[in-house]
Amino acid sequence: MKFVKNKVGRSIPEELFGKKLIPFTGKGKGPYKERKYAPKIRKTSPGDSKVLTSIQEAIKKGGLADGGTISFHHHFRNGDYLLNMVCHEIAKMGLKDIRLVPSSIQPINDELLTYLEKGIITHINCGTSGKIADAISRGKMKGLLTIRSHGGRARSIENGDVEIDIAFIASPTSDEYGNINGVHGKYACGSLGYAMPDAQFANYVVAVTNTLVPFPNNPISISQDHVDSVVLLKKPIGNPAGIVTTSLRVTRDPKNLKIARDCIEVIKASGLLKEGLSFQSGAGGTALAATQFLSQYMKAKGIKGSFGMGGATEALVRMLEDGLFDAILDVQSFDIYAVRSLLNNPKHIEMGASQYANPLSSGCAVNLLDTVILGCTEIDTKFNVNTSTESDGRIMHGMGGHQDTSEGAKLTIIAAPLQRGRIPIVVDDVVSVNSPGENIDVFVTERGIAVNPESQYFDILTKTKSLNTKSIEDLKAEAEKLIGGKPQKPKTTDRIVGIIEYRDGSVLDVIYQVEK
Amino acid sequence: MKFVKNKVGRSIPEELFGKKLIPFTGKGKGPYKERKYAPKIRKTSPGDSKVLTSIQEAIKKGGLADGGTISFHHHFRNGDYLLNMVCHEIAKMGLKDIRLVPSSIQPINDELLTYLEKGIITHINCGTSGKIADAISRGKMKGLLTIRSHGGRARSIENGDVEIDIAFIASPTSDEYGNINGVHGKYACGSLGYAMPDAQFANYVVAVTNTLVPFPNNPISISQDHVDSVVLLKKPIGNPAGIVTTSLRVTRDPKNLKIARDCIEVIKASGLLKEGLSFQSGAGGTALAATQFLSQYMKAKGIKGSFGMGGATEALVRMLEDGLFDAILDVQSFDIYAVRSLLNNPKHIEMGASQYANPLSSGCAVNLLDTVILGCTEIDTKFNVNTSTESDGRIMHGMGGHQDTSEGAKLTIIAAPLQRGRIPIVVDDVVSVNSPGENIDVFVTERGIAVNPESQYFDILTKTKSLNTKSIEDLKAEAEKLIGGKPQKPKTTDRIVGIIEYRDGSVLDVIYQVEK
Repeated sequence: MKFVKNKVGRSIPEELFGKKLIPFTGKGKGPYKERKYAPKIRKTSPGDSKVLTSIQEAIKKGGLADGGTISFHHHFRNGDYLLNMVCHEIAKMGLKDIRLVPSSIQPINDELLTYLEKGIITHINCGTSGKIADAISRGKMKGLLTIRSHGGRARSIENGDVEIDIAFIASPTSDEYGNINGVHGKYACGSLGYAMPDAQFANYVVAVTNTLVPFPNNPISISQDHVDSVVLLKKPIGNPAGIVTTSLRVTRDPKNLKIARDCIEVIKASGLLKEGLSFQSGAGGTALAATQFLSQYMKAKGIKGSFGMGGATEALVRMLEDGLFDAILDVQSFDIYAVRSLLNNPKHIEMGASQYANPLSSGCAVNLLDTVILGCTEIDTKFNVNTSTESDGRIMHGMGGHQDTSEGAKLTIIAAPLQRGRIPIVVDDVVSVNSPGENIDVFVTERGIAVNPESQYFDILTKTKSLNTKSIEDLKAEAEKLIGGKPQKPKTTDRIVGIIEYRDGSVLDVIYQVEK
Repeated sequence: MKFVKNKVGRSIPEELFGKKLIPFTGKGKGPYKERKYAPKIRKTSPGDSKVLTSIQEAIKKGGLADGGTISFHHHFRNGDYLLNMVCHEIAKMGLKDIRLVPSSIQPINDELLTYLEKGIITHINCGTSGKIADAISRGKMKGLLTIRSHGGRARSIENGDVEIDIAFIASPTSDEYGNINGVHGKYACGSLGYAMPDAQFANYVVAVTNTLVPFPNNPISISQDHVDSVVLLKKPIGNPAGIVTTSLRVTRDPKNLKIARDCIEVIKASGLLKEGLSFQSGAGGTALAATQFLSQYMKAKGIKGSFGMGGATEALVRMLEDGLFDAILDVQSFDIYAVRSLLNNPKHIEMGASQYANPLSSGCAVNLLDTVILGCTEIDTKFNVNTSTESDGRIMHGMGGHQDTSEGAKLTIIAAPLQRGRIPIVVDDVVSVNSPGENIDVFVTERGIAVNPESQYFDILTKTKSLNTKSIEDLKAEAEKLIGGKPQKPKTTDRIVGIIEYRDGSVLDVIYQVEK
């Protein structure tokens, strides 16, 4: 295998599983294809019914065969039942070598492990967590894990890097003709943003629902002219209670609260915290706390922002309700409060994944962000950020919109403690690169704030006396001192089990199988 | 030139202007292409501005060249200023051989005549009226007029029969990133339905607006990820007063009122006028009257329908407001009352042209229509309907959604008087076929009702004693008696100046140049 070093110093093979890879050469590159993908033309004629009563019928109608590709959204997060249901059906039908393209794999999907081992699922395209992630790290899947950002996923579907045979859309409500929304019914999950590129570009689209409403469903988030079958099931497609996980609760840890406060101090010092601010934060506990502190500050000072974006959380919705933003752009509703707001508040706007973050579109919303607060599992002295792997090399997460917002926002802040357990967060080289250092402006820890010397805000932030700025090397040294040395390098074999794509489709990094 | 006879008996050349033609072989055929069109991938990066201040800049950015194709919507109808503005600019720039793909050409576009004569505009794809239509009939345009239904237009854009270089979208409001709606501002025109396929499938998309609103515009009818430039002009893009034309007023003619009443009698007799009725009517005076009679009847009987569709008119909106429908699906707002309703009534739903009527999509709304009332300029004894040409062979109109709704609806009613002036409406053979007889169930005139023997409603309607049913041949004989003979055949040359496509892309008819 021939390797080429990319811009963040990672060795990328020229080819993998028969596909040529493009090494990452810096943000803002591409398009690497001239035209969008051209999905198959289907036809539903007057008198045809779309309503089916089993997933198997839909799989057959969609013509799925060995080696095929199926897609899913993860708006139910850890309460999603559909991905498992469809895979069980596929296994029963004796299909194999299937490529999964969900927008995320969550611990609830642990039960699919056996299908990786049996070669029923051989490729996964998305961030993964739980046992599936662990198994892939240990070489249990025959093919490749391709980790993409939310914008990168939308791009890959729109430009045909991924050709979806059947998109399965868990649909809280649908009418008989496949007009879908996520805001009504017992199983409301909010925005259907991640499913929108799938609906537009898949070769067959299946809405799976427990709740058939009279035609026309209203509002229409995904419209009938893209939906080929409507599967009406009694078995629930998902559990909205699973949307909120522990990672989505406001932190109470004083260390993290300090970090959250300092994030807001950094935004203030940058000059961006003023009338018309646009803002996004991740859904981690620290980011949620930062959102609350931002809210308090804006209220106190009478500052009105323009839009908040996300991952919509209760914290963000309350800012909208308090008049601190004119609008929320919502690609994913992170809690029931946000789901209800999307239903009831016309200023809470549903947004598709391309509209949110596809870099190779006519313009995505992350491009208009003033500031974003994001997390990491590691950051290195080049400000490269890791969100996907543990320090021992095992895969643990995807990356959500990390790459997208960090490239798009004027000011990108990474908020994390200097160490977690006995693991340092700042290192010489991150195990895996999810966002390149060129996207990152500031790293905020409980023991100081490092500003990227390449950031346009370097001068203004390092000159702000109230900010405890340090070099990233100093923070690294502090971390090593606390832990008593450098962390161990992960022990890996030479088999590549995963790649991390940049949002434009080039390759940022590869992930190796860990040693037993 | 080799010709093939199609299913409605018209001789269709095998090829025209280098393009192979598919003769019409009956409804429900196609797709004739396997895949959708793959538009160019464009990119707007963080920091890029989309806002321009002249149409010329946008034409240049879109890379329009000689032989190029540009598209427009006609939601301002006879109040549209943008199509003319862009063509004047193109003429100034010295471009030539341009293909126009508006959703309609109206009399306000008469001033473009000179560009046909100069070879600046050489092909037009849409229904036309006014001087442009007349000039094409007389051979003044070098290329070909292709008349498509609204659904056929959407299909041609989605399947790449038409490749749009630049779509110009007259946008009542836009934000700086090209999120557009038609319901706000001084120049509100309502639904932007016809522009939606253009936005999705054009290779470059330009929003032209007088009203730039803060990001994000809300609601978003066409989203930023498809819009490449936003041209902000002081000169108005359109005059909403031009939306309503005389053809959109309720008739007062007793003859037409009788026809309108009988249309409702036919629907009653068919058994479709019951709970859950779905309904569309054209925007002619008789159709509007029929809508009012339907409303009165439903109110009196306590019947509640499911949805009304259109061309939304005040008459239809009032039925929604009176609770006679659950929803209106609106691809085009026909008057200011409908525009306001789309803004304020959540049950009034905006719909794209593919969602409305694209036959080669996963399912369009016309497929779910119970009944539609439509007009015609001629109908023949095979129930073939002409909407586009005069009895002397000259082009006078397009056909709107005639083909789409007549194929989709269970019961299609053509409502027209037996004669207009000294011109009979029922003839042996229509001059041009816009909708094939197989789509038509009933022809309602002031002197009797003809039911198509092929209609599933033939027995029930002809057995209903309260309906004055006659054979179409009898109606034709009556018309000839009234006028004193058969109408003259149009005098034409052997040059083909236009074709009428069926909605699936096959060719229903050709239009010849008229003799001087």
